[in-house]
Amino acid sequence: MADRIIMGIDPGTNKMGYGVIRVCGRKVSFVTMGYIDLSRFKTPYLKLGHIYQRVSSLVAEYKPDAVALEAPFFGENVQSMLKLGRAQGVAIAAASAYCSEIFEYAPTKVKIAVAGTGGATKLQVAEMLRHILSLKELPSNLDSTDGLAVALCHHLQETAPFPASGSKGGWKDFIAKNPERVK
Amino acid sequence: MADRIIMGIDPGTNKMGYGVIRVCGRKVSFVTMGYIDLSRFKTPYLKLGHIYQRVSSLVAEYKPDAVALEAPFFGENVQSMLKLGRAQGVAIAAASAYCSEIFEYAPTKVKIAVAGTGGATKLQVAEMLRHILSLKELPSNLDSTDGLAVALCHHLQETAPFPASGSKGGWKDFIAKNPERVK
Repeated sequence: MADRIIMGIDPGTNKMGYGVIRVCGRKVSFVTMGYIDLSRFKTPYLKLGHIYQRVSSLVAEYKPDAVALEAPFFGENVQSMLKLGRAQGVAIAAASAYCSEIFEYAPTKVKIAVAGTGGATKLQVAEMLRHILSLKELPSNLDSTDGLAVALCHHLQETAPFPASGSKGGWKDFIAKNPERVK
Repeated sequence: MADRIIMGIDPGTNKMGYGVIRVCGRKVSFVTMGYIDLSRFKTPYLKLGHIYQRVSSLVAEYKPDAVALEAPFFGENVQSMLKLGRAQGVAIAAASAYCSEIFEYAPTKVKIAVAGTGGATKLQVAEMLRHILSLKELPSNLDSTDGLAVALCHHLQETAPFPASGSKGGWKDFIAKNPERVK
């Protein structure tokens, strides 16, 4: 069975997390994760240009079969959604130049898929990723794991569309099995 | 004095208007206008990819010294602003790959600059453009003139930052001088 590469992107206006997984049959393995730091750019236009360049480079390098984005559909106010929409749009345009399969997941959906509950914290999601993908350690910046979470969310959606909370080994199950991981 | 090329873009989710003017000293002349039809694309991802390609082609062809965008900062609801933000972001990213001078103007500002009043209709703005740029005829689709209006707005902003309503020959003045143009 051919490997399938899934890239996840969590587009933000200051940091854009990304993660890549490889799926072969029932086996899922970690490929890479990181984040694009946009805070050093002086204008929003330079930020948007940089998002396009970096996302283009990433899709050209990892050649994903599918790109999944974490996309909030509702926000605090119209201005923040406009800014977020700009970042999302640029990431989508760059990804779609190389990959025809683009998917979007609401933040709560990502948390439910990965950690079993829509109320999971960033750290809880990250710990679940470490567990599922056998990561040796977590990065200091959790924007990267947010990107990776979207990739895994898409894989889980493809194989077993969103199980009910906890039924596939969610956060509660994880705590029960790994009490030493919870601080 | 060297010519200065200004491109205006009115990013929409179904039609994206654009217009180009050439400025040499006090002389402003029309170069081109048109619109990118996005309605034929089946998915929002294909639309965004197409916006990037077309805006890239336009800036590569006309090599603008400045690109001005009509950018509403407030809208009906967060979802419409998110969609509009995506289109805006992609147009900005494509333009900024070729041109370092990007500007944004609120729709009301464009109308005041071109037609002398923030309450001007599309047709009133178009008639003012015909008058100022000596256009022989107006296109049937006024998305194109909306793009052209932003370009002219930027030029007026550069040369004489936003006069008060009517003081530089606004809509009222235009009607007084051209009563036969008003139906």
